[in-house]
Amino acid sequence: MSLAIISPGRDPKVWIDALKFHQPEIDIQVFPDIQRPEAVEMALLWQHPPGYLSILPNLKLISSLGAGVDHILSDPAVPESMPIVRIVDEKLTWSMTNYVIMGVLNFHRQLVRYQADQKRKVWDMSNPEIPVKVGVMGVGALGGDVLDKLNYLGFSVSGFGFSEKEEFPYPYFSKEKLEDFLNEINVLVCLLPLTPDTESILNLDFFKKCKPGTYLINVARGKHLVEEDLIPALEKGFLSGALLDVYRTEPLPVNHPFWEDGRIQITPHIASVTNPQAASPQIIENFKRLKMNQPLHNLVNRDRGY
Amino acid sequence: MSLAIISPGRDPKVWIDALKFHQPEIDIQVFPDIQRPEAVEMALLWQHPPGYLSILPNLKLISSLGAGVDHILSDPAVPESMPIVRIVDEKLTWSMTNYVIMGVLNFHRQLVRYQADQKRKVWDMSNPEIPVKVGVMGVGALGGDVLDKLNYLGFSVSGFGFSEKEEFPYPYFSKEKLEDFLNEINVLVCLLPLTPDTESILNLDFFKKCKPGTYLINVARGKHLVEEDLIPALEKGFLSGALLDVYRTEPLPVNHPFWEDGRIQITPHIASVTNPQAASPQIIENFKRLKMNQPLHNLVNRDRGY
Repeated sequence: MSLAIISPGRDPKVWIDALKFHQPEIDIQVFPDIQRPEAVEMALLWQHPPGYLSILPNLKLISSLGAGVDHILSDPAVPESMPIVRIVDEKLTWSMTNYVIMGVLNFHRQLVRYQADQKRKVWDMSNPEIPVKVGVMGVGALGGDVLDKLNYLGFSVSGFGFSEKEEFPYPYFSKEKLEDFLNEINVLVCLLPLTPDTESILNLDFFKKCKPGTYLINVARGKHLVEEDLIPALEKGFLSGALLDVYRTEPLPVNHPFWEDGRIQITPHIASVTNPQAASPQIIENFKRLKMNQPLHNLVNRDRGY
Repeated sequence: MSLAIISPGRDPKVWIDALKFHQPEIDIQVFPDIQRPEAVEMALLWQHPPGYLSILPNLKLISSLGAGVDHILSDPAVPESMPIVRIVDEKLTWSMTNYVIMGVLNFHRQLVRYQADQKRKVWDMSNPEIPVKVGVMGVGALGGDVLDKLNYLGFSVSGFGFSEKEEFPYPYFSKEKLEDFLNEINVLVCLLPLTPDTESILNLDFFKKCKPGTYLINVARGKHLVEEDLIPALEKGFLSGALLDVYRTEPLPVNHPFWEDGRIQITPHIASVTNPQAASPQIIENFKRLKMNQPLHNLVNRDRGY
């Protein structure tokens, strides 16, 4: 019984080391060098080649190497009946929230302006703060933590989601109230799961409904954003800037216009990175549970998409 | 009975507007255009010319235009018996804490590295976080708020101060334990009051005791830092970078080496700026209390220095 790591373009070594640290005798095979495909019963996936799983005749369980599973659900070759689990890691939430707060504070306190002033040796004390109201799209574990922490820091916050909510500790807007939500806020944080409802939601029509000069932080998935609409939205003043961590194609292609736009701050999908040391025990636990036919942890609900 | 604003180099208009908004009939005279010095009974000061107050024969009360009063106490011409009040404003604390958290997060999440990577179109996902432990020097209202909020965000924090403390919610180090404090942390926040004990405390000898690569955030006063020691401390690796908001001479002179050092991020004394609208009622209240011979609010204890 063997575990396959299928994560093209990322160094698998940190995962192998972490898994073996927690279970030294574990049998691991790594893509593209899978010599005994029939032995593989569990696969750890991150952006695997679609259709590839068909070479694993005895596959019984898929685990995402992160919190998201859209990269798995989007492959039609993954059988409907195949159980999928994901990583649930407090450290993931912590990192994500820190990244978002960093983005909010840098906008609020105009870091980019002061960096430019320093370069030009300009001492300008006027209007040091941009008043902000933060809206978070997606109010699950990640969005909820961002809301709680920004609220504790004294910022005005609102949440947006696709479902109705009876009780929510902050102003909450469901799908039908999108325009009201966008009228409330001038910093927009996207933490939605990627589903057919949310794919391409951040487009020019959407940005038109934002308050002029809204600042965008996208830490969810590249496919939430219609990338060719972002620079026009900046040009027209619907948005004043953006902090992006995720893209349609990763790594971001060298000829992509985002690299050179001073209004867009880019990071290479590091807002929240699964820590192999922290996540390995969960993977090993599910591997054992699979072997012993016990209920799996952190099972994904496919209808919900996460 | 008239109020004098003596704040050279800063635009007094926002203060005049705010004070008149709250008390339209107030009689205000503004330096250097004080025509009726004998009418002035209260002076609002921010970095006044030392000795200047001797032209005001009937001065009875000094108010700082901010939280700090070192700019007043350092003028030997201010009579020992003259009461001094200062601005106490929650908004001041809020702004200061936000600024410090911004600095901590930008170091922790390596914003400057990702900005450089973007410029060179480099996609490097390795080691996205620098682990941080934050030490706050000065644990009064400002330092305490920084500690509480960083602790809530999940960061490891310690405090340092000149006095002993019996009970403190976080690890606390007094003067004799400075080396232990510096051994605990790799982000150092200076929020000390400026007193003879703390002036020039941030010097090369001090930086030598820091863990290599410590990051400095100075939001207190320029005189806490021996400025000519900062670049040598960076060169030697005692420090890895600094975020500075205050300087020995403000505005920072154009030929100052801090402007051009990529390891130093400069802001123009805006970490926490007194908001005239929020602070004016306090000033007016003390002006009335002076008139009616009632106890003053936010009176400074000169022995303590704040």
